[in-house]
Amino acid sequence: MKQYAVIMAGGVGTRFWPQSREAFPKQFLTLFGNRSLIQQTVDRISKRVPLENILIITNQKYIGLVNQQLPEIPLENILGEPIAKNTAPCVALAAEVIHQRDGNAVMAVLPADHIIFDENTFLNIMDSAFLKAQEQDAIVTVGIQPSHPETGYGYIHFNGNSKSTYGKHDVHAVHGFKEKPDLEKAKYFLETGEYLWNSGMFIWSVPTIRTAYQTYLPDMFSLAETSFAGSNGTVTVQQLTSFFNSCASISVDYGIMEKAKDVFVVPGSFGWNDVGSWSAVYDLQDKDENGNVKAADIHSLVNTKNSYVSSKSGKIIALVGVNNLAVIETDDAILVCNLDASQDVKKVVESLKDDKAKFK
Amino acid sequence: MKQYAVIMAGGVGTRFWPQSREAFPKQFLTLFGNRSLIQQTVDRISKRVPLENILIITNQKYIGLVNQQLPEIPLENILGEPIAKNTAPCVALAAEVIHQRDGNAVMAVLPADHIIFDENTFLNIMDSAFLKAQEQDAIVTVGIQPSHPETGYGYIHFNGNSKSTYGKHDVHAVHGFKEKPDLEKAKYFLETGEYLWNSGMFIWSVPTIRTAYQTYLPDMFSLAETSFAGSNGTVTVQQLTSFFNSCASISVDYGIMEKAKDVFVVPGSFGWNDVGSWSAVYDLQDKDENGNVKAADIHSLVNTKNSYVSSKSGKIIALVGVNNLAVIETDDAILVCNLDASQDVKKVVESLKDDKAKFK
Repeated sequence: MKQYAVIMAGGVGTRFWPQSREAFPKQFLTLFGNRSLIQQTVDRISKRVPLENILIITNQKYIGLVNQQLPEIPLENILGEPIAKNTAPCVALAAEVIHQRDGNAVMAVLPADHIIFDENTFLNIMDSAFLKAQEQDAIVTVGIQPSHPETGYGYIHFNGNSKSTYGKHDVHAVHGFKEKPDLEKAKYFLETGEYLWNSGMFIWSVPTIRTAYQTYLPDMFSLAETSFAGSNGTVTVQQLTSFFNSCASISVDYGIMEKAKDVFVVPGSFGWNDVGSWSAVYDLQDKDENGNVKAADIHSLVNTKNSYVSSKSGKIIALVGVNNLAVIETDDAILVCNLDASQDVKKVVESLKDDKAKFK
Repeated sequence: MKQYAVIMAGGVGTRFWPQSREAFPKQFLTLFGNRSLIQQTVDRISKRVPLENILIITNQKYIGLVNQQLPEIPLENILGEPIAKNTAPCVALAAEVIHQRDGNAVMAVLPADHIIFDENTFLNIMDSAFLKAQEQDAIVTVGIQPSHPETGYGYIHFNGNSKSTYGKHDVHAVHGFKEKPDLEKAKYFLETGEYLWNSGMFIWSVPTIRTAYQTYLPDMFSLAETSFAGSNGTVTVQQLTSFFNSCASISVDYGIMEKAKDVFVVPGSFGWNDVGSWSAVYDLQDKDENGNVKAADIHSLVNTKNSYVSSKSGKIIALVGVNNLAVIETDDAILVCNLDASQDVKKVVESLKDDKAKFK
């Protein structure tokens, strides 16, 4: 079976303001190393999936940006959503396009904006997941071994007693999916050893996912079949517009995963993080002896600890007597944020959205 | 007797980096209202002293800046020190120039970079001091009624039991001057009611101060007499260079005030502050309901308290979840400083001075 990858890149990041903007969201940011998150995602999966089999599904307005960052991806593989309708329509579109190209393919659906530090383990896990997905009706997910009782992720409850081995990794049956827990529940999840973080990665064969849509989201399935009929795997803007305008807004987790039978998970640890805030960017980088991370050209830190400084303007950035801060400068903005409050950066964006000119 | 004022404006501020620079020190900054500290100093004293009797003594390199900010001051009244030699040579120079213009004048020596909020009371105190100084051999200072046990100022110990009234204010004999105290001593000073903050303002007649120099700093006195002989109150760059190069570096407090007899003080409260750091600038301004002071054009403060934000670049400045910070942006630098550590800003300047290009 041929392997395809679908990279979901429609997000509008606001938690990385001022670097992320409506015109330049998180997946396009170079937060680690010298490649953006979406470039790293493509670099990684292209070691298993040929470039012509990688689809990028993004908002219409980011097609130019995707093409600029990923010139190696054929333009007909970059699909623009005219309107955001959550992930179920996006996956239905991808399944239909791949179905037209190769009715027997297996496909992986991957977020564009996560970081993975251990690429080898990740690729071994993908190998196991692809092998399992080639069995009829196996819906496969990837679950992350939790390192702490995180309350910011959804969890996958799996059957620890039954497993089968595919390639280098074990595959377990899934009991169910759990929403983000409170701390007490998260601690319980960690203790049992039967819960994994939901990475948002899915692997299945084209016939399996099409059958699942037919069963659990029949209207969306018919709409996709009708909208993209005769497109031979290369959809038009008109077809995309017609499909997305008529689609319900629903997530693939809620619409398919939580309802489907025969769901499996490959557990793994591969230095994964969904990079949800500046705090995560700070946590994931090498620190100096004072716990500081300096991504600024010129800086002077006096009695400063556990802080993240980023500037590309060439300005001198000086911090004096502070702790646990992120200071981010861009061409038109400066953010000074308590790292423990970095989830609140979105409130800045909300306040600025009232004045459209300030949030371009 | 004619009244003169000498404004000492030679300071190189480093505590207001990044706004103050070697090329633009504190006295030229507009920290309050829309006039710089030196402009406010001249505006104030010019209500008692005619502009042609106001001398500005500054570093040679700031003559252009003084002229630009104070075009109303005659150019021959702006005197440039070729080299910093503390305050005693500066006062000797001023006394000599004024002596040549009017041997019987009274003169006030005033710092250029302090803030005074109650101008009327200040002017009444100056009236009293000028009256007292017209008595033979009266060396007069202005002392600030302390509001708290401040350890950052020097103190004047005065005789609370003997006083005479000049104009609207009382004048007391001075017992002595005290260096910056520790907290325990500062508390004792406050309790006794016989100690005042040393404002660095001096008022005396020209004959009185010349006699004092002749007595306590005879070498400096002779050097001044010789260097400026025949200059008729308009000194040349050559004369200034010759004088300052040969002078000892010594303060007027140590060289004259601490040794002189017949020293008097006028106590007063007139909203005085020497504005020693960003923390003082914050303290002296009106706050919003969260204790914030915003001198930035565009800003978004989320869960932010007791902070000072200043930017003139038009950039958006956003603070999230922080407390007690100063954030100052200029064309080429950004300072993020704990307000309790604002004395340490000079350490930034020291670290940048190693790289001359960054501290222009």
